[in-house]
Amino acid sequence: MDKKHIDFFANISGKENVFDDKAHLIAYSYDATREKYQPDAVVFPRNEQEVSKILKYCNENRIIITPRGAGSGFTGGALPAKGGIILALEKHMNKILEIDMENMVAVVQPGVINMDLQRAVEAKGLFYPPDPASQEYSTLGGNVSENAGGMRAAKYGITKDFVMALKVVIPNGEIIRAGKRTIKDVAGYNIAGIIIASEGTLGVVTEITLKLIAKPKISQTAMGVFPTVKDAMNAVFKTMAGGVTPVAMEFLDNLSIQAVEQKYKKGLPIDAGAILITDVDGNKQEDLDEQLSLISDVFKANGCVDFKIATTKEESNNLWFARRNVSQCITVYGSKKLNEDITVPRSKLPNLLDEISKIAKKYDVKVPCFGHTGDGNVHTNVMVDGNDPKQVEIGHKAIEEIFKATIALEGTLSGEHGIGLSKAPFMHLAFSNGEMELFRSIKKAFDPNNILNPAKMGL
Amino acid sequence: MDKKHIDFFANISGKENVFDDKAHLIAYSYDATREKYQPDAVVFPRNEQEVSKILKYCNENRIIITPRGAGSGFTGGALPAKGGIILALEKHMNKILEIDMENMVAVVQPGVINMDLQRAVEAKGLFYPPDPASQEYSTLGGNVSENAGGMRAAKYGITKDFVMALKVVIPNGEIIRAGKRTIKDVAGYNIAGIIIASEGTLGVVTEITLKLIAKPKISQTAMGVFPTVKDAMNAVFKTMAGGVTPVAMEFLDNLSIQAVEQKYKKGLPIDAGAILITDVDGNKQEDLDEQLSLISDVFKANGCVDFKIATTKEESNNLWFARRNVSQCITVYGSKKLNEDITVPRSKLPNLLDEISKIAKKYDVKVPCFGHTGDGNVHTNVMVDGNDPKQVEIGHKAIEEIFKATIALEGTLSGEHGIGLSKAPFMHLAFSNGEMELFRSIKKAFDPNNILNPAKMGL
Repeated sequence: MDKKHIDFFANISGKENVFDDKAHLIAYSYDATREKYQPDAVVFPRNEQEVSKILKYCNENRIIITPRGAGSGFTGGALPAKGGIILALEKHMNKILEIDMENMVAVVQPGVINMDLQRAVEAKGLFYPPDPASQEYSTLGGNVSENAGGMRAAKYGITKDFVMALKVVIPNGEIIRAGKRTIKDVAGYNIAGIIIASEGTLGVVTEITLKLIAKPKISQTAMGVFPTVKDAMNAVFKTMAGGVTPVAMEFLDNLSIQAVEQKYKKGLPIDAGAILITDVDGNKQEDLDEQLSLISDVFKANGCVDFKIATTKEESNNLWFARRNVSQCITVYGSKKLNEDITVPRSKLPNLLDEISKIAKKYDVKVPCFGHTGDGNVHTNVMVDGNDPKQVEIGHKAIEEIFKATIALEGTLSGEHGIGLSKAPFMHLAFSNGEMELFRSIKKAFDPNNILNPAKMGL
Repeated sequence: MDKKHIDFFANISGKENVFDDKAHLIAYSYDATREKYQPDAVVFPRNEQEVSKILKYCNENRIIITPRGAGSGFTGGALPAKGGIILALEKHMNKILEIDMENMVAVVQPGVINMDLQRAVEAKGLFYPPDPASQEYSTLGGNVSENAGGMRAAKYGITKDFVMALKVVIPNGEIIRAGKRTIKDVAGYNIAGIIIASEGTLGVVTEITLKLIAKPKISQTAMGVFPTVKDAMNAVFKTMAGGVTPVAMEFLDNLSIQAVEQKYKKGLPIDAGAILITDVDGNKQEDLDEQLSLISDVFKANGCVDFKIATTKEESNNLWFARRNVSQCITVYGSKKLNEDITVPRSKLPNLLDEISKIAKKYDVKVPCFGHTGDGNVHTNVMVDGNDPKQVEIGHKAIEEIFKATIALEGTLSGEHGIGLSKAPFMHLAFSNGEMELFRSIKKAFDPNNILNPAKMGL
């Protein structure tokens, strides 16, 4: 990168916050996808004003910017696919600015780690529900940009359901206030609504106002074992339709169960078609008992052969063990995991799992599935030998068929990971030319020179 | 309007659905604002395909379109400010297409009346919470376009919190599918998010997928009488901060109480500073008792001098009588009502009412206030003699000061009515030039020829 640009950034954010040495460029070449794209510089802005000045300068000089939180995204949203600068927000812009007890909102900078906010508000008896698997390291700015979900989504919703207001810097350097600390606000276009899930392509989020709720006092875990995955999927949507919304309703299919058992020997039911692990919460034991009783009834009516309720924290941890560790265990089926987070309406879960099983057979690949069935979100893992290019190619073909089946069932390419680079080639399966054209027009409205995280989302 | 255009529309939607006779043009000149703007023709499309063809033709021929549901909006969103055609969706596109019990969603056309959906889903044990005061006649398409709120917003949220997916026709005639029947969907920009509250300026909504929840089994009403409006406002936000979220928490100030009493002689406490009327709901009497007990405690700790709990439906109706009838009664203070729906964060309610009281004194006008305090939404009515232009001018000055005070308290120009024509002159108070520029860019991305409901929202 031209030295005059580096000097400009150093002048704005301080020399100690601008880097173009090899070590930094390599460190910021990666994210959780393990793909590699090297930036030309890394800048750590200290505040919103600096973000504004940097964007304006980059816009005028056509310098590409990729905003970055923790780099924990699964689809390459934080990768500098076209070079330029990485605008890294985790170093300085990582403060919880306010926890407003009276209005039950938190105001945070984008670099705050999700779990740090959860802990801070829980200490005050409040609750921030969105809990992506990355909660220990992903940032709230990233959560907003990808509209992160998590296990509790079925009951409490996802990131977008908690964003009340945003401050966003758009490429021309304007600082936009979008939304208010009020439940109702209908003045002007819902800019916050379109920034959420826009994957850093429309603006850089510099401040986030999040809704908090009262923390439920108690929760309890249960597990059910099912002979077939179809039985389990039926039990899931019938539980919800029966009026109980568990905080979490997670499943592992047979391949996933076997993988965990192979590694950890926990005495899991290796012949089961699937297990469901569920948490319910509330303020009184009586409420929990009622929910668990309905779940037990629905599970048993749908073939559940073994139903356990945890009565201690330790028992609860034991029931959750398989789900918490499944992701690392399934590599027994292949060194490379082609991992997708497809989602369908809950009632279509049995059909989706059927289709996946057919596709796995057709391509002769193992496809262990697990995930957040309470909201129809299935983590689908096509496992292949990463050293065998032919197998990888077959895996990708299987993925494409799985996407097609998902969309035919009124589902979506991504429930929580976003499109980024990884799923860009599949956007045409889900969106018409007219829809893609509209996306491009919106991108242009915010970013006419295409400097902000270009080449993402298939735009 | 040129006869060839009328013929084109008649060819698309049938002669019996296209009108340019005087009676129709006058009937469709008005909405709930009682302002008058005459269209050049009125078209009643029968389906989405017709909407698409009409928009495409109008876009190519630069014919202005104003989409319209029931015309019950309070800010002129459905008024054809620049002439052209009214696209009236209430006649044919008014079907409930599906109530999906398994996924708990409803799919409706835009012309469905809000209350018709509520009744249909409640018959199946489900619940659609958004309940604008216009619920008996306003359409769901209008509710989406204005992001309608209602009394239950504090507990259940507003229209946007229930929209899962939309179908929208944009000016070039493309039919856009936005969102899915899934809790999680992060593929592509959140088009549904920006269509909500866009007041018919970006596209015509042709299908709406709404989230439903389980219907709470019972509810109960209570009322508290307070010596000052400030006490009442404190009681509101302390109740919510105390962990109880009533379904409704409505207030009337002293002027509002007096107005109802003057007309109906119900024995209301005419010396009270304010009354609060609240509904709680749940599935068991015990839950209701707990909520009412906390409310009673908080109310009394904040100066409540009289607290009543309704034990029958009739008693509940009696407690609600004043709130239900206040809007028509306040005309005792002036023939013209300058009615605004400002909203502030709940904790700022006492300050807001203070400011309004000072402004009323300064301009020597009566400003009865009532509304949805649970979510900080206050219906503020500057009452003037409609036949005295000088008084009307003074009233408008008072309104402008009230807006300024609201924004200084981090509030919004509109909690639920939208901007339309009525509030367009005040947009500069709430938004920077950069923010207005961004709104215009977004408008252009959807509607480059500015044919869709132009001259609204201060764009």
